[in-house]
Amino acid sequence: MNLLDQIDQPTLLVDEEVTRNNIRRMAERAQKQGVVFRPHFKTHQSAAVGEWFREAGVTKITVSSVEMAEYFADHGWNDILIAFSMNLRQIERINSLAERIHLEVLVENSEALSALVKNGQSAMAVWIKIDAGSRRTGVDWQNKVELKELCRAICQNPRLELAGLLTHSGHSYHAGDRMNVTSVFREGVNRLNQVKSELASEGFAGLKISVGDTPGCSLCEDWAGVDEARPGNFVFYDAQQAVAGSCRIEDVSIALDCPVVALHPERGEVVVYGGAIHLSKDYLYVDGKISYGLPALPNGKRWGMPIPGGRVDRLSQEHGILHLPDAVIDQIRIGDLLFIIPAHSCLTVHAMREYQTLQGKKISTLNQVK
Amino acid sequence: MNLLDQIDQPTLLVDEEVTRNNIRRMAERAQKQGVVFRPHFKTHQSAAVGEWFREAGVTKITVSSVEMAEYFADHGWNDILIAFSMNLRQIERINSLAERIHLEVLVENSEALSALVKNGQSAMAVWIKIDAGSRRTGVDWQNKVELKELCRAICQNPRLELAGLLTHSGHSYHAGDRMNVTSVFREGVNRLNQVKSELASEGFAGLKISVGDTPGCSLCEDWAGVDEARPGNFVFYDAQQAVAGSCRIEDVSIALDCPVVALHPERGEVVVYGGAIHLSKDYLYVDGKISYGLPALPNGKRWGMPIPGGRVDRLSQEHGILHLPDAVIDQIRIGDLLFIIPAHSCLTVHAMREYQTLQGKKISTLNQVK
Repeated sequence: MNLLDQIDQPTLLVDEEVTRNNIRRMAERAQKQGVVFRPHFKTHQSAAVGEWFREAGVTKITVSSVEMAEYFADHGWNDILIAFSMNLRQIERINSLAERIHLEVLVENSEALSALVKNGQSAMAVWIKIDAGSRRTGVDWQNKVELKELCRAICQNPRLELAGLLTHSGHSYHAGDRMNVTSVFREGVNRLNQVKSELASEGFAGLKISVGDTPGCSLCEDWAGVDEARPGNFVFYDAQQAVAGSCRIEDVSIALDCPVVALHPERGEVVVYGGAIHLSKDYLYVDGKISYGLPALPNGKRWGMPIPGGRVDRLSQEHGILHLPDAVIDQIRIGDLLFIIPAHSCLTVHAMREYQTLQGKKISTLNQVK
Repeated sequence: MNLLDQIDQPTLLVDEEVTRNNIRRMAERAQKQGVVFRPHFKTHQSAAVGEWFREAGVTKITVSSVEMAEYFADHGWNDILIAFSMNLRQIERINSLAERIHLEVLVENSEALSALVKNGQSAMAVWIKIDAGSRRTGVDWQNKVELKELCRAICQNPRLELAGLLTHSGHSYHAGDRMNVTSVFREGVNRLNQVKSELASEGFAGLKISVGDTPGCSLCEDWAGVDEARPGNFVFYDAQQAVAGSCRIEDVSIALDCPVVALHPERGEVVVYGGAIHLSKDYLYVDGKISYGLPALPNGKRWGMPIPGGRVDRLSQEHGILHLPDAVIDQIRIGDLLFIIPAHSCLTVHAMREYQTLQGKKISTLNQVK
């Protein structure tokens, strides 16, 4: 019996083979460049998928919250970077975790660092979070006074190891094409290296450089000046990444399987059970219009290529309203399944909290529902 | 000790008193209009909050999924409407549930109805889902042939009771002001009543009319022609509803409490721990710009009024980047808490999956994390 026949509500499927290929390819890229591969686990959030990384030789990981660090520490990971600016209110939990594993953290201001110094007992590696152009957060890469001050304060504490300079060039997600992504990636790396030289001349030598966006790590061939790479999204990729050219559509390894509940051929629309609480409300543009993912028909045990001209036009809490070509709607019956390749896999995985492989193996995550 | 002092990560707080007032007010409105009050529980998704409704005299409820119906049936609710077009793939679960409680369902096509007739054993009430103008889904209110056919097929089956005509005028959420909301509400009700008369003349007499949007039920004073009301969002309301005028900002009874992790006064921004996985990516417009909620300062045991000129400018997975006036930023310290009144409370509650009252009582939901 085809596993798809058993699906009765929105279900997130992952193609394990494609996922393992994504992992292997990125691990090889990092290895070829002589760069430490510290993948971000916030996309898959799963101990089971973590094992696929371990089998590809990964031993160091990145997470986005203390909670996620605790979860992966509980699943045997003992070298974890929490890539989120130090939250003063979690310093006790951070300290407890640092007693169990090798923990790396980010700081970007003296308040957080002082609190860490005052309240900590455990050894940990500290990265300075740099804003190299993304304007999300971090010390501005040109703010030499603050950077020097942070280095000094970290080095004064024998418990803390000054690891280096870390950035996330999140603006590469909107850069557009390989040339622009490469340019954003190189600009970030070059700025960090400029800061590194300046700090070296002030006596803070040997700082490492850590970068992490999936578009840059997927498309840029020149990783010179990078010591560590932390991409995350590449494990599954998604419609945004495929449309932006970071991967082929065939490399996207997850899709939401949705029962069809209504057909409205007179306006070119199909309604599925699958909405904002399943996909998230992140979107991409298809033919200049907002689309909350890419619709695809089933093909054997999984989904096929996106339907040309198809869009996820609207989402409410549980409904997805798909715009599809007439010839496709003609083939669809109420009760059929349609797939939606998510706009943004990280948010869809988080929304769904569990998924399953094409072979029917359940994949639980950090936020597993009871 | 103030409970806020114990918050170390994004935490959704609910003001029980304001919530109970929202429930009481809407129950009274329905009672005054002589309309059955069947509130939608998809907003709060919680058995505990369900009890607040029960204490206000509510005995009939609406849900948006079979799963949610099962959850509330397990918590003692025995009159439940699943306000989602019949999903063929869940007919067995629907039948099982109908054996335990009085279940009401929606159909909008003969395929779903045939499957229900063929595969069912249990009695249930069936509503015809009408599209009275929202263009989400449902039988077009002008499609007399289909409407008559559905009525006939339902009435032919002695197990099934033809309950009436149901619509959700979701477009009222974007109608703008009281006059427009009232106009959308009345248009929907009038169209349903027109269909009702036509069907009565075909021999399908006594059909009830069920409507359900929070803006319409909050703002429209003329409920003539309505038999049953199913609003949901009003339990907590949210920033979208307050800005649209469905409620006062003081009536919004939930907010996400977020630790401040970075200050960027040079660009008028504050970074909090609280992002797309906590708030969802739904938004409203503030001063013509997208905002993923309304920022507010703490005030005693809860949040104060929204900060004038404040916006949640950007969200990534865990980060919220708030734009705030300089004078406000000057008062904020790293490690402080800031509140965000969600743009869309249904999606924020679903994203968070648990919340707590101002007295520290934990409120679990259907999708409780382990």
